[in-house]
Amino acid sequence: MPLTPVSDGTNYTSRHLGPSRSETEEMLRTVGYGSLDELLDAALPSSIRQQKAPELPEALPEHEAQERLRELAKKNVVLKSYYGQGFSDTLTPAVIRRGVLEDAGWYTAYTPYQPEISQGRLEALLNFQTMIQELTGLPISNASLLDEASATAEAIGLMSRAVKKGRRVLLDERLHPQVLAVAAERARAVELEVEITDLTAGVVGEDLVGVVIAYPGTEGDLKDPSSVIEEIHSRGGLATVVADPLALLLVSSPGSLGADVVVGSSQRFGVPLFYGGPHAAYIAVTEKLKRQIPGRIVGVSKDAEERPAYRLSLQTREQHIRRERATSNICTAQALLAVVASMYAVYHGPEGLKRIARRIHAHAVRFAASVDNVRHESFFDAVTVEVPGKAQAIVDSAAEAGYLLRAIDADTVGVSFGESATDADVEKLAELFGTSAVEPTDEQRIPDALVRQDAPLSHSIFTSVNSETQMMRYIRQLGDKDLALDRTMIPLGSCTMKLNPTAGLETISWPEFANIHPFAPDSQTAGWRELIAELEGWLAELTGYDTVSVQPNAGSQGELAGLLAIRRYHLAQGEGERNICFIPASAHGTNAASAVLAHLKVVVVATADDGSIDLEDLDEKIEKHGNELAAIMITYPSTHGVFEDSVREVCEKVHAAGGQVYIDGANMNAMSGLAKPGEFGGDVSHLNLHKTFTIPHGGGGPGVGPVAVAKHLAPYLPADPLATDSNAGVPVASTRYGSAGVLQIPWAYLAMTGTDGQANATAHAILGANYLAKRLEDDFPVLYTGKSGLVGHECILDLRELTDASQVTAADVCKRLVDFGFHAPTLAFPVAGTLMVEPTESEDLGELERFVEAMKTIRAEIQEIIDGKVDYEDSVIRHAPYTMQSVTADEWNHSFSRTQAAWPTNSLKSSYKYFPPVRRIDEAYGDRNLVCSCPPPEAFDLTTDTDEKLS
Amino acid sequence: MPLTPVSDGTNYTSRHLGPSRSETEEMLRTVGYGSLDELLDAALPSSIRQQKAPELPEALPEHEAQERLRELAKKNVVLKSYYGQGFSDTLTPAVIRRGVLEDAGWYTAYTPYQPEISQGRLEALLNFQTMIQELTGLPISNASLLDEASATAEAIGLMSRAVKKGRRVLLDERLHPQVLAVAAERARAVELEVEITDLTAGVVGEDLVGVVIAYPGTEGDLKDPSSVIEEIHSRGGLATVVADPLALLLVSSPGSLGADVVVGSSQRFGVPLFYGGPHAAYIAVTEKLKRQIPGRIVGVSKDAEERPAYRLSLQTREQHIRRERATSNICTAQALLAVVASMYAVYHGPEGLKRIARRIHAHAVRFAASVDNVRHESFFDAVTVEVPGKAQAIVDSAAEAGYLLRAIDADTVGVSFGESATDADVEKLAELFGTSAVEPTDEQRIPDALVRQDAPLSHSIFTSVNSETQMMRYIRQLGDKDLALDRTMIPLGSCTMKLNPTAGLETISWPEFANIHPFAPDSQTAGWRELIAELEGWLAELTGYDTVSVQPNAGSQGELAGLLAIRRYHLAQGEGERNICFIPASAHGTNAASAVLAHLKVVVVATADDGSIDLEDLDEKIEKHGNELAAIMITYPSTHGVFEDSVREVCEKVHAAGGQVYIDGANMNAMSGLAKPGEFGGDVSHLNLHKTFTIPHGGGGPGVGPVAVAKHLAPYLPADPLATDSNAGVPVASTRYGSAGVLQIPWAYLAMTGTDGQANATAHAILGANYLAKRLEDDFPVLYTGKSGLVGHECILDLRELTDASQVTAADVCKRLVDFGFHAPTLAFPVAGTLMVEPTESEDLGELERFVEAMKTIRAEIQEIIDGKVDYEDSVIRHAPYTMQSVTADEWNHSFSRTQAAWPTNSLKSSYKYFPPVRRIDEAYGDRNLVCSCPPPEAFDLTTDTDEKLS
Repeated sequence: MPLTPVSDGTNYTSRHLGPSRSETEEMLRTVGYGSLDELLDAALPSSIRQQKAPELPEALPEHEAQERLRELAKKNVVLKSYYGQGFSDTLTPAVIRRGVLEDAGWYTAYTPYQPEISQGRLEALLNFQTMIQELTGLPISNASLLDEASATAEAIGLMSRAVKKGRRVLLDERLHPQVLAVAAERARAVELEVEITDLTAGVVGEDLVGVVIAYPGTEGDLKDPSSVIEEIHSRGGLATVVADPLALLLVSSPGSLGADVVVGSSQRFGVPLFYGGPHAAYIAVTEKLKRQIPGRIVGVSKDAEERPAYRLSLQTREQHIRRERATSNICTAQALLAVVASMYAVYHGPEGLKRIARRIHAHAVRFAASVDNVRHESFFDAVTVEVPGKAQAIVDSAAEAGYLLRAIDADTVGVSFGESATDADVEKLAELFGTSAVEPTDEQRIPDALVRQDAPLSHSIFTSVNSETQMMRYIRQLGDKDLALDRTMIPLGSCTMKLNPTAGLETISWPEFANIHPFAPDSQTAGWRELIAELEGWLAELTGYDTVSVQPNAGSQGELAGLLAIRRYHLAQGEGERNICFIPASAHGTNAASAVLAHLKVVVVATADDGSIDLEDLDEKIEKHGNELAAIMITYPSTHGVFEDSVREVCEKVHAAGGQVYIDGANMNAMSGLAKPGEFGGDVSHLNLHKTFTIPHGGGGPGVGPVAVAKHLAPYLPADPLATDSNAGVPVASTRYGSAGVLQIPWAYLAMTGTDGQANATAHAILGANYLAKRLEDDFPVLYTGKSGLVGHECILDLRELTDASQVTAADVCKRLVDFGFHAPTLAFPVAGTLMVEPTESEDLGELERFVEAMKTIRAEIQEIIDGKVDYEDSVIRHAPYTMQSVTADEWNHSFSRTQAAWPTNSLKSSYKYFPPVRRIDEAYGDRNLVCSCPPPEAFDLTTDTDEKLS
Repeated sequence: MPLTPVSDGTNYTSRHLGPSRSETEEMLRTVGYGSLDELLDAALPSSIRQQKAPELPEALPEHEAQERLRELAKKNVVLKSYYGQGFSDTLTPAVIRRGVLEDAGWYTAYTPYQPEISQGRLEALLNFQTMIQELTGLPISNASLLDEASATAEAIGLMSRAVKKGRRVLLDERLHPQVLAVAAERARAVELEVEITDLTAGVVGEDLVGVVIAYPGTEGDLKDPSSVIEEIHSRGGLATVVADPLALLLVSSPGSLGADVVVGSSQRFGVPLFYGGPHAAYIAVTEKLKRQIPGRIVGVSKDAEERPAYRLSLQTREQHIRRERATSNICTAQALLAVVASMYAVYHGPEGLKRIARRIHAHAVRFAASVDNVRHESFFDAVTVEVPGKAQAIVDSAAEAGYLLRAIDADTVGVSFGESATDADVEKLAELFGTSAVEPTDEQRIPDALVRQDAPLSHSIFTSVNSETQMMRYIRQLGDKDLALDRTMIPLGSCTMKLNPTAGLETISWPEFANIHPFAPDSQTAGWRELIAELEGWLAELTGYDTVSVQPNAGSQGELAGLLAIRRYHLAQGEGERNICFIPASAHGTNAASAVLAHLKVVVVATADDGSIDLEDLDEKIEKHGNELAAIMITYPSTHGVFEDSVREVCEKVHAAGGQVYIDGANMNAMSGLAKPGEFGGDVSHLNLHKTFTIPHGGGGPGVGPVAVAKHLAPYLPADPLATDSNAGVPVASTRYGSAGVLQIPWAYLAMTGTDGQANATAHAILGANYLAKRLEDDFPVLYTGKSGLVGHECILDLRELTDASQVTAADVCKRLVDFGFHAPTLAFPVAGTLMVEPTESEDLGELERFVEAMKTIRAEIQEIIDGKVDYEDSVIRHAPYTMQSVTADEWNHSFSRTQAAWPTNSLKSSYKYFPPVRRIDEAYGDRNLVCSCPPPEAFDLTTDTDEKLS
């Protein structure tokens, strides 16, 4: 079925595609094909091409897609949210909404693996870590996790690794139900024994890994966790506390009470309810546990000029090479939302946050004093009222009056106060409970012993930004330091930094979407559910699977959900012994890590020289492990960027052995609209909506990783965490739809492009990669190609011979690209010593040629070293990148000129060039000296020594 | 009445104010006062302090103000707009909405008087000019006017100046009614004879200035204007054509048909309906008329390194010194909206625009072919249907069906097609006229003779940006070149660059506000009108006047409206001989220009050395001109930044002589909440909502200049241009409420600050100015102070002695400030050789001190010249500012170092510094070589000579 050509400017697809019609033709000529169809016929094995085009609705123009979203939005009912249960009413300051959540410089940024061009978001994330450390009273925090429930699961895993012995975990029954559901199931999946228990009875029994304590409980009750912590410590176990960070402004920090780990959600620090997510969860640990912490951690190091500079710490990078020895599969987290939460703390400061917490507490106290039968004496923000038999009636009449309350059960109503609550609200709520509000009082319902004594958020960053003007400028200043998609192509292989359509992004702030509580009844969420159902349907169409669940809020969680579905399926078939997962040597490290979390044993299948699976080795491994074979995980096209001809054969062999086929959808952007993994052999795939389907990367999240399955696996898709049924699938996120709040973006992308648009996007992605491969092949050999000598949607440039000849490493080239205003390609994945380049369909020919010019210029710089004209140690590459200050220094002691350093091409001279704010960062130094909270302001004083400052 | 102190972070006022509580105290100590109240008592004459605090509603928190705005928005009814009459349905591409209209870098920028830090918006405005030139077929265009109606008035003034003789102007009766109303009244005000006539009958009579022709007419009819143009030329007059720029994609350009002047509105190039404005009007003229064109024109010059660089042309700057010889009073125009329109053209390009125009035409043709009794054979987008007696019924049933049509009269309905129209809409509309739509046809209703033959928008900028990614990056790249409020204080005296609250700005894009047609019936605009009524009421409270009209869409128009009200009042009193306006020597040039446009004779009143009005001279002038005295225009506090004690006395003297007192409200930010001009002697004032009341400057507009009057003048406030009554006031804008679409911003500002907030803002503005004056007085003498040695809200730094001693001019200091990351203060106004500095209340102490540090550093640089250590010609100041390239050049031939040039202070070294994209611009070169369209791309080729390139 031939492609429908796209004419310039006629529909949204033509705006999404980078090349104009004539540029597409020029690129095809360079690659050597007469049309996109000819190219596709040559690049894609006919065996995988889809039988039938996916049936998406006809593509809508941008404004019509927004109109339809507006109709959907209007079907939701926005009430004042007093539901609580982990999701609280909060106010996003407008300056932060516009400056961060709605600013392309922030949301289109990639994960800060290249620290020199990421100092702005690294600083914001370091602020987040510092905030979490100061609030929890623990010295180490990471830069966010996915949600409170999975963070709790991660904490259990961490305790289990640290304690090393024991199989029993006690979960406080006062934890939120969704946290209990996810944490318990995740723990059981790795064969820990989980007991949900009343901890006031004390810690009972032996063989304990640890305990997880709610602080406060889901009913709002505030109890001192100290004695439980002491007890578990005395038995050799560890204690995790799940804490509300806003409560921590007023109550003693878990760290001061002895907790080893603290987790929770920072949602109520200015992040909208978003129908459940994305929100940044946090995890903080003691010094002793710091090497066990999952996820990414920002650390402080220094640059080549000895200035303090931020970067992701060693262990972040280790995650990716640990593979089956990994302890967590977290990659993408919630960076953008962590930035929002940190900016909220910076804007309000300790005094402002305390004022907000106190006001909330005062409203809760007044309400509790007004109504009868309040269950708990002590609380922070949530009041539980006993109303025998009348819970639903009260909740219903509250809804009529515009308030969303929580019916805990038929006899109990929860009322949880948030930032926007007013005296008038308290009075109205009292009325709904059949009484009138008492006068406001100064009474406290926080036990004296738990009143916080120390002053958190003492770092000066939390008191230096007071006015809206200062906030606006701080956000802009940090954003300006970073290179994101709004200034340059980000040619990251496997990460697909394509255009994020503004028309979809604009809608995430609409209150009818953003201000919906995840546990609002279906009667209030018709618009959301219709949108999600459509999106899931479209994704099923594109992938050729039966059913899709959007619950996993990152690719890693999608993988886990898919593997857990396979596990449950085998168990249901009475084949519980199938617990081996084949993973090709070339796979992304996350695959193995996810398999481990699903309690599967990893067996590596060899890959041939061309990157494809070694069929002989596969046969041998099947021979050996066939009866225990649970699944094979393969990436298609492979992480080598190649469409393997043999994929159908691989699938057939595994199926024949009784195994399931997991096709990693990370590279779906090389197939969407052209091939369906569900058709050519997959039983399950996850998709990265933040890659193929245009959710922006946000500097390291939000991600959305839906899992798509064939019919026989559908019963095992992630269950609603509030409705778990041990026969259904394992919930992997706090809420039914995970990061619901950004699903308008892929919805809009698919609504505006449709089937033809998807096929064209894929064709252009393949064209772009082949164009770059062709243009660069004389300078940098392309490592793998498929049939016809073509690559897929990305290509690997092999620098190893050049490195041998010149000492210039692939990492040097990455740093040097900064001087040309480029973000680096993917470094050393999947093959060390190489760069993987993925231009995506959204880059126009001019930008591709700008990249070619940069790479050829760098190649010439390398040649000068090879030719002996320049010494590597004094080469322009070795010292890259260059800051504005470094090239304007009064002294210049290099053998190369300032112009060569800063303006290596003529086109740069006529551009308004980006300069990084720091020189090359000393990674080793940062690893030796792990500092992961904000350095004191004096650290930036140029007259003192950095080593001293950071010590 | 003492101020209510503002605590940090407790309410919105504390976010609006720059200094924290402790900073306020520190600043007061420096200035030498114990409290803000003491400072105010010393700074403000007791004679002007208000009797009674203005009664604004209690201040709302940010989110409550937005909730209230949301309630108001919901009271408007958004229909699909088929009304036309100068305002068309158009689609703003999301990437432009977010990137320009909603981006602080664009909307907080000041008018580009400092070209080195304004290259981005200058380029965008040059694109606008180029677009207008190519569409109209005339070689010279300006960078926007306020609206179509006032642009037509400006065109008539221009023709009258150019022709020099004749008093008669013929207006085509086919012009839109609002254009006829405004243009005719404005022309009559300067005693031209205006005839509204059927031009098909030919040009009749002598003594002709010129003719204004509609192209197409208000009923959509398209007629060839050539013969009328020929006739008027043969009688020595000129021809203005009012043209729809989208129609010009398909019909012959007015320039090619002989027009001398073309005006119109660029609204339908992607700018929302905005309930009438702000929209950028345009004016284009022949080469012969280029020195007559009103408003600002962007021109091309070169910088100190011979690169092409943009700047406002000579005549723009001349406007401000022409005073009573001025030909137009236009200052602020619609820069931000012109940028949007230009980006729309860049994004769609000539082919895309043609496609949009053709689709609109095709819909109109199909509709016309479907219904009976279509009045005109030829049209572009609007179809006029004769429906005897049934117009209102059809319009009503259309409204029911969701369409806004125009009832031209009881028997006639107009249906005007816009960008979003679909086939389904045409079918539905035909149904509403009792018929069914015919099949789509290829028929054209543009007369063969008028079909455009040449290809407009041939410049490469209109074909180089095709994809959303390219558009996003182009917008970001241009924005990054400019220094706006989101990166630095802009300490412009008299222009009040204070914080623009995000919470208000966010709401201007809400469709319930943005998508309302200005002529929608009141039943659909209840929300808008309630908002406007509240705002007008609050402004009346603050100023002490009886009634306010928001119609004037710039300060200049507010002045004109106020003076015209005074004229009408005197006429109504039978005192038509009162036609003299006293203007103090120190007044802003616009005052005199506005007086001229109101046909008042200007008599200058002397000012004393301290900047206050010379009472003796006033007495003499009253003695001499008392019987003809119409009004005095005074600015309070004066343009010298001083509160004059004698203002009440001045007002009393003028009143005693039978004159009216016009108090220019440009400096209302020095009084709001503390003093009311209407109480201490004013009969009328205009306000600059884009100064005191936080509408952002937008790089030179939108402005909003409401006029406020005492009761006796209320009947003469601007009338609705569609309901003119010769006894009422003169309409000054195309629509009833002028730039209605941004009034949420001042509404939100006042709603969030309230009376106390206003008083505090004013007090902090005065404190900030006095703080800077104190901190800088040893280095730069402060020119004027009032009683107690205090300044008002701004201060004038006198550089004249330093210039004499060192050759360093105030302009040099402005350029040097760029190297510190600052926008310059106001240069040479109101006194040559000085800088006027106004920090506003929104700047925190840190930012003020950063400015102090910069100014003191510059002072030390000047001292080195005075001391003979450095030669002025080779001084770091003389060559400022420095681009990144200039300080990284391989050769460095200055006596000062690179560090001194680029990093003159330590604090800059630890900042991420802004560098301008060009060196100092050669203004004289640009004036000698007026180029005001985009240079060809080769002009930026570094290898060729600039003189050649621009010639």
